[in-house]
Amino acid sequence: MVKTNSKNNWRTKLHDIIYEADTPSGKLFDVILFIAIIASIILVMLESIKSFDEKYHDFLNISEWVITILFSIEYIARIITVKKPWRYVFSFYGIVDLLSTIPKYISLLFGGIHALAALRALRLLRIFRILKLARYLGASNLLMSAIRSSRAKISVFLFAVLILCIIFGTLMYLIEGEESGFSSIPVSVYWCIVTLTTVGFGDIAPVTPLGQFIAALIMILGYGIIAVPTGIVSAEYTAQGKKINPGPDPKVALNSKSCENCLAENHHDKADYCYNCGERLYGS
Amino acid sequence: MVKTNSKNNWRTKLHDIIYEADTPSGKLFDVILFIAIIASIILVMLESIKSFDEKYHDFLNISEWVITILFSIEYIARIITVKKPWRYVFSFYGIVDLLSTIPKYISLLFGGIHALAALRALRLLRIFRILKLARYLGASNLLMSAIRSSRAKISVFLFAVLILCIIFGTLMYLIEGEESGFSSIPVSVYWCIVTLTTVGFGDIAPVTPLGQFIAALIMILGYGIIAVPTGIVSAEYTAQGKKINPGPDPKVALNSKSCENCLAENHHDKADYCYNCGERLYGS
Amino acid sequence: MVKTNSKNNWRTKLHDIIYEADTPSGKLFDVILFIAIIASIILVMLESIKSFDEKYHDFLNISEWVITILFSIEYIARIITVKKPWRYVFSFYGIVDLLSTIPKYISLLFGGIHALAALRALRLLRIFRILKLARYLGASNLLMSAIRSSRAKISVFLFAVLILCIIFGTLMYLIEGEESGFSSIPVSVYWCIVTLTTVGFGDIAPVTPLGQFIAALIMILGYGIIAVPTGIVSAEYTAQGKKINPGPDPKVALNSKSCENCLAENHHDKADYCYNCGERLYGS
Amino acid sequence: MVKTNSKNNWRTKLHDIIYEADTPSGKLFDVILFIAIIASIILVMLESIKSFDEKYHDFLNISEWVITILFSIEYIARIITVKKPWRYVFSFYGIVDLLSTIPKYISLLFGGIHALAALRALRLLRIFRILKLARYLGASNLLMSAIRSSRAKISVFLFAVLILCIIFGTLMYLIEGEESGFSSIPVSVYWCIVTLTTVGFGDIAPVTPLGQFIAALIMILGYGIIAVPTGIVSAEYTAQGKKINPGPDPKVALNSKSCENCLAENHHDKADYCYNCGERLYGS
Repeated sequence: MVKTNSKNNWRTKLHDIIYEADTPSGKLFDVILFIAIIASIILVMLESIKSFDEKYHDFLNISEWVITILFSIEYIARIITVKKPWRYVFSFYGIVDLLSTIPKYISLLFGGIHALAALRALRLLRIFRILKLARYLGASNLLMSAIRSSRAKISVFLFAVLILCIIFGTLMYLIEGEESGFSSIPVSVYWCIVTLTTVGFGDIAPVTPLGQFIAALIMILGYGIIAVPTGIVSAEYTAQGKKINPGPDPKVALNSKSCENCLAENHHDKADYCYNCGERLYGS
Repeated sequence: MVKTNSKNNWRTKLHDIIYEADTPSGKLFDVILFIAIIASIILVMLESIKSFDEKYHDFLNISEWVITILFSIEYIARIITVKKPWRYVFSFYGIVDLLSTIPKYISLLFGGIHALAALRALRLLRIFRILKLARYLGASNLLMSAIRSSRAKISVFLFAVLILCIIFGTLMYLIEGEESGFSSIPVSVYWCIVTLTTVGFGDIAPVTPLGQFIAALIMILGYGIIAVPTGIVSAEYTAQGKKINPGPDPKVALNSKSCENCLAENHHDKADYCYNCGERLYGS
Repeated sequence: MVKTNSKNNWRTKLHDIIYEADTPSGKLFDVILFIAIIASIILVMLESIKSFDEKYHDFLNISEWVITILFSIEYIARIITVKKPWRYVFSFYGIVDLLSTIPKYISLLFGGIHALAALRALRLLRIFRILKLARYLGASNLLMSAIRSSRAKISVFLFAVLILCIIFGTLMYLIEGEESGFSSIPVSVYWCIVTLTTVGFGDIAPVTPLGQFIAALIMILGYGIIAVPTGIVSAEYTAQGKKINPGPDPKVALNSKSCENCLAENHHDKADYCYNCGERLYGS
Repeated sequence: MVKTNSKNNWRTKLHDIIYEADTPSGKLFDVILFIAIIASIILVMLESIKSFDEKYHDFLNISEWVITILFSIEYIARIITVKKPWRYVFSFYGIVDLLSTIPKYISLLFGGIHALAALRALRLLRIFRILKLARYLGASNLLMSAIRSSRAKISVFLFAVLILCIIFGTLMYLIEGEESGFSSIPVSVYWCIVTLTTVGFGDIAPVTPLGQFIAALIMILGYGIIAVPTGIVSAEYTAQGKKINPGPDPKVALNSKSCENCLAENHHDKADYCYNCGERLYGS
């Protein structure tokens, strides 16, 4: 595909850098982004430690501004290089990119608002976008499809667990009462979830013999039924492995291009056109 | 099958609405029931929070009456539309329906009795009845049969765990004694279950070196043997999948009809007569 | 096999009642024994609850004497009916039977000794002997052989876990020190086992940032490697199932006879002679 | 291969004793080393218990010297008998051997430094070297290869878990705030790891309803996704078993020789030359 327009030419190059991961410059961009995100998360964490924030407030503030400006530039670059900017702006990652960048600007106007500052932690979600790289490790693909196909079954299981917790929680509320810390049914249900999932904080614990007996039942139940989701994933994982492995090379080779038009990913290695919108893919 | 009696005709229709899930009106009924149950459970929970109950007592009371009357009507409708009402009344769900509806009426006579009010949480169990819908997700069927076939083995396992807990509990009672909180053998066994199932509340914890050593043994044991139920369910689940998948279409298509006479469910898709009592099924 | 001696005749009958589980009288004997053991364990538990013991001391004492005498008679009957009594006396169950019976007699001479009284809890172990009945449920057999064949691997795994706990425990002792409750390396190792097995009592918890970081590592490790024993048992269980299921009827039918001479069990259904010592089996 | 030099002759013999495990003297050496390591670890532990250290200080000190000198001799012997000593000195085990031996000598010069003394616990790592013996149990080989091949997938999983913990931790920090113990984001993330891995210390626990609701979500998530690593290892383990078992004797027989030149292990049973550097192996 020939692009004669020079303006489109640098946009195409920029698009390749930002959205592709196979080219050297694309890889470099992803690595820099990865480091910036990690640095940003560490900054958010350090800021939340009071003693540290008091000592190094200026350093933290300046670093945060540097990173915020970097992310702002990246955000704008993403909008410019995509053919349909609104699609990106209102996509999941578009919203995450915006939400994690604006808190610092808002703090200029209204002063540092605690809750807003923490929004920056959302940047972590972007790591998943970068991790399309991880696909090349061959590791997460099979994993993902096993999780995806067992999701419905595990949801049914967790739903049943929740109902059990509500019933047992109500029972414990009646048996133990408020003086043992089971102050209301929701708290009691919370305790029941803590116990059934074998977390067991111990902030609330039954003291009556009957309460301890029911608690023991809940624990043994939780200990026994953890086998259910595990069994599901095991079986699905084995099944997925069989689906993919038997043939000579049934795994479809994927490239890391993303469609300039609709942002779709996971194109076949030799794809010339987007499978989703038919747009011709860059570089093909 | 021709029903000429007009009275029987509306009863048949009502029966279809209440007991079937395939017709539009049957689905609507189930959805409304589902919402009513969830609303009812939330009411029970909110009532148990003292500060909330004091503020919004009247609102909670009125809402509860509305829902109670709705459930009462449903209960009566179920009795009317079934051919053999007593069978329904003394069935598991019949008793649950009654028990979860009457507390409010009793509170009229004797004032609000705490324990009775909580009976309303039993309504949650009805969700399982509605969830025959879930069967159509195809998810829970295989899951259920895997759990069913591994139930006996897991019971044997949990029984062995219980015996271990009693023996180790007695041992810890002797080693730690009352000053560490191991005040009697039952309490000590309770602690042992808390520990072996890896819940670990920490309300009771060993303080003597020997006690901590035995505790460490119990934990490692509990950590190691959780593999057993998991292994069982995994294997059963894989086995169940093989039983059902190999042939061209061995899964029997089921419909959601329930027999008007004996309440049996899970009829074949093309069944004209109840497999359980021979009664002709509605609509066939 | 013809037994002409009349004395031998009643001994043979008594042997059948005590050691066999297929005959009606043998089953009845096992059921009575089962109930007596459960009753006995409940007595031991109730005795350990001080408030209960003070109120009902006489009742508990008399009940305990009744059960002790019953078990004594059973112990003597077992010795009489076996051909080589010493073999039984020094077998595992012979020692358990004796140890769980004598504490009450010793209490006559020296007064109630706490630790000895608890020996009676050992009676629970006898339930496993009765549970040869469980074999007929078909459930525990496959389970047992899966556990047996994965025992070596799980031991290697638990040994590696223990070494990890000692190394991490020493590390935490250095990092946290005594003021956080990590008062010595053994205590620190104990804490590490509590954490890695995901029990988490909370009686000791890290307070320094570095300590909490290492603790987080240990937890994630413990959460990740629990997959190992589970995977082993799963695979073994599947493998065991395949070994037993494929052929037309490879499972050997067993009878419940036990050899009068050497106490060996698990004889083939049609066995006339003991596979272990060659003694002719009763009733064949 | 003929070695005429007499000096090389005793070095060859010593090398066989230290590095081989098949000869009687090699086995004896390993057993003695094993006992010395265990004794050494127990000494380190006992020393850390203050009350014990005060009573038996001299005994502990002398024992420690005896063991330190033994390990020093072994260290020197290892250097002498290997052809390329520097390779050993800078190998993983070479560093472990040195680090775990010198603390006692340093204590002569500078007095007992706490942290250094604990370095001796590193000796435990040497048990893994001795455990090449364990290979003959046939147990750990399959286990190791299953763990190795699922390592990448479990890492991806644990990485995703960590990201989840950071996001949920930040959320909990905002919801609960400092008065509940969620004093900073790192502490909050630590709590989130404690909860998601179902450890649940209870030193920090949510107190607000919303915090408890999010906590319940985290727990259920942690309870559900533990199935993922388990499923991976299960499937890998099954797959490994299939790879190794099908053929008539596909398992390669290994001997316990280690190359005198490059320290490589796991040579084929009949190997005459090192597969790694081509050096002729001792005894072939």
